[in-house]
Amino acid sequence: METFFKVKTPEEVFEIIDQFDPVGEETIPLEDALGRVLSRDVVSAEDLPGFFRSSMDGYAVRSKDTFGANESLPALFEIKGEVLMGETPKIIVDKGQAIKISTGGMLPEGADGVLMIEYCNLLDEKTLEGSKAVSPLENVIQPGDDYEKGATVLEKGSILRPQDLGAMAGLGLKEVSVYKRPRVAIISTGDEIVTMGKQPRPGQVRDMNRYTLGAFLRRVGAEPVYAGLCPDEFEPMKEMIEKALSRADAVWISGGSSVGTRDLTLKVFETLKDFELLVHGISISPGKPTIIGRSGLQRVIGLPGHVASALVVAEVFLARMIGRLSGQADFDRVFRSRVEAELSRNLESASGREDYIRVKLVENRGTLTAEPIFGKSGLISTLVSADGLVRIDMNTEGLYQGQTVEVILV
Amino acid sequence: METFFKVKTPEEVFEIIDQFDPVGEETIPLEDALGRVLSRDVVSAEDLPGFFRSSMDGYAVRSKDTFGANESLPALFEIKGEVLMGETPKIIVDKGQAIKISTGGMLPEGADGVLMIEYCNLLDEKTLEGSKAVSPLENVIQPGDDYEKGATVLEKGSILRPQDLGAMAGLGLKEVSVYKRPRVAIISTGDEIVTMGKQPRPGQVRDMNRYTLGAFLRRVGAEPVYAGLCPDEFEPMKEMIEKALSRADAVWISGGSSVGTRDLTLKVFETLKDFELLVHGISISPGKPTIIGRSGLQRVIGLPGHVASALVVAEVFLARMIGRLSGQADFDRVFRSRVEAELSRNLESASGREDYIRVKLVENRGTLTAEPIFGKSGLISTLVSADGLVRIDMNTEGLYQGQTVEVILV
Repeated sequence: METFFKVKTPEEVFEIIDQFDPVGEETIPLEDALGRVLSRDVVSAEDLPGFFRSSMDGYAVRSKDTFGANESLPALFEIKGEVLMGETPKIIVDKGQAIKISTGGMLPEGADGVLMIEYCNLLDEKTLEGSKAVSPLENVIQPGDDYEKGATVLEKGSILRPQDLGAMAGLGLKEVSVYKRPRVAIISTGDEIVTMGKQPRPGQVRDMNRYTLGAFLRRVGAEPVYAGLCPDEFEPMKEMIEKALSRADAVWISGGSSVGTRDLTLKVFETLKDFELLVHGISISPGKPTIIGRSGLQRVIGLPGHVASALVVAEVFLARMIGRLSGQADFDRVFRSRVEAELSRNLESASGREDYIRVKLVENRGTLTAEPIFGKSGLISTLVSADGLVRIDMNTEGLYQGQTVEVILV
Repeated sequence: METFFKVKTPEEVFEIIDQFDPVGEETIPLEDALGRVLSRDVVSAEDLPGFFRSSMDGYAVRSKDTFGANESLPALFEIKGEVLMGETPKIIVDKGQAIKISTGGMLPEGADGVLMIEYCNLLDEKTLEGSKAVSPLENVIQPGDDYEKGATVLEKGSILRPQDLGAMAGLGLKEVSVYKRPRVAIISTGDEIVTMGKQPRPGQVRDMNRYTLGAFLRRVGAEPVYAGLCPDEFEPMKEMIEKALSRADAVWISGGSSVGTRDLTLKVFETLKDFELLVHGISISPGKPTIIGRSGLQRVIGLPGHVASALVVAEVFLARMIGRLSGQADFDRVFRSRVEAELSRNLESASGREDYIRVKLVENRGTLTAEPIFGKSGLISTLVSADGLVRIDMNTEGLYQGQTVEVILV
């Protein structure tokens, strides 16, 4: 019975999850690395860029030849030629000389600055007036300005973004070492569940969990493995879980919403090799009857039966678990998935548990308002209407209308 | 010369982009639909659920038989059997009778409520004491509680999330109509650019744009098509753009950072079939020399040469463009990619243009601080260190230390 669960607080569950290690590493082409997690620091093997480059269109000059120049007293230069893009310039800039250069061009020997085209006035093909002084290295990118040889470009644990791939391409890294995506087997259980393609008879419902949890896993960087539908019977369930564990790093079992199914799930878990029960119930609503255990190095999770409750548990706890299993260093940099909003009404809460309330976000003249969605917690429609979840702490009795709350986007 | 561009304001550019239409629709399996955009409303063809379900473990009863019951005066019931999960119960609940039922079980005929197990006391195998009154429909999910037949479940233009796929699975939808992902051809131009696999000679740099922009496109839901490296010459560029347009919905050309390359890009655009120049310069920094045009129904974009500037333009304008081309209704529901933070120092800005300043986010006791990253705007390292961009409006002279600013996450 639920009342006899030794429930853990959310904080205790986070501590347990934070001890999970990454599932392994692999080498993949740079091109496929968006969203993957670095398993080793990326260190620059060379200076980037490797040469002095102009950062403007203009003329490469010796800065000291421009000192004192202004509109009423321009400096005069002899134009000696042009730097071709992608080429090492062969001409050397000497006193009073200038060489035309484009943004990105290599600075010729002798020059130490670039006079922007805006301050250049051509008197004839060979003669230039410059109406501005140029400081040494002005409009010049130096070797190593982006990354010096030996610099740490990206740290292990980073989730790779477009600009990160760009920097690695700039350094010539064709491949990258990343953590493997955790493979998570999904089992839907419950005698009332039928596969989505089947027409349910009265008393039966279609399997929503496979699609909901599978998509959730993809979104947080894991790879779902569909293990199938399981009846509420000991032997078939044990067989299915063991088979799933042979080809995945974790098993998530969900769908049976009755106490009987939950008890059965735990009984089967307890027969797994080297099983250790880590969490049997969490003091949250919805999501209390969650089971977290391990069979050796593999994790086995029993999720609440209602798909909506299961998804709340997944958002709150299992996203962090996947972050750990996939080696993310900044899984706790939560600002990427949270926003602040003003609560539209008072929310009461039972003390002794954390409540996660579904909310819809409404923007009005720059202010975001979080409007609680009411409805039976087992209904998927409440989560389809929701933009996020608002947490009510265990130690408060509720939240007030107008209060600023953090919304976990779903 | 830049100074002669008829630059457009960001607002004008958004108005132009917002007139772009989706590129087309297709039908895909539900399982592949995460993150895709619905091209048609999803309407429920049936009631979900299709029958009266218990939302608790307990006993199905006639609510009126429980009226007045409490701990000191329990109601007595004769236990008539058990509802099997997934089955239509064959027993009818009559006056004073109760049938055992699990969460998700189908309510038997005659019963109109479920007495939770917590309030049940078994006197013997056949006799039950109930210590609480049950209201009609208490602990019961009614047919259509999730979705009634004919209800709009999801609207055209929605970006599909895990729970949305779950609801569609619950309704038995094996396939879903979505907008096609826009195919965008990427061309990197500039005589100084070499492919990533090549060792650059002095004066040359590796192609970062392909990887940066390709990953950006994937992230915002488009499909990158790598068209190749292009020299700064009219004929090869024209040929490459025309070939790219034959297999993509749009072309993004970037990499050449000199005015010469930009002029060349525009000259080539002007020879395309039914070309119309929509934007030639935007009053922002970085990103001013952006070109947006159309060749018939296809879009051609000339991006600034520096990859970091190109990525800023992509984040600010082209994410919205991809949103339009892929039919997203709520591309402007920006709260998913923005956070508020406190600025760590004063920022000055030239009036008459919008500035986008790269910032690093630092969390300290629940407060997010945005710390500006300084450095030459052409350096990719500034974007690798950045978590986001802060916009300084055209009509302000800057932002103040301690001010709350909106950060566009990158």
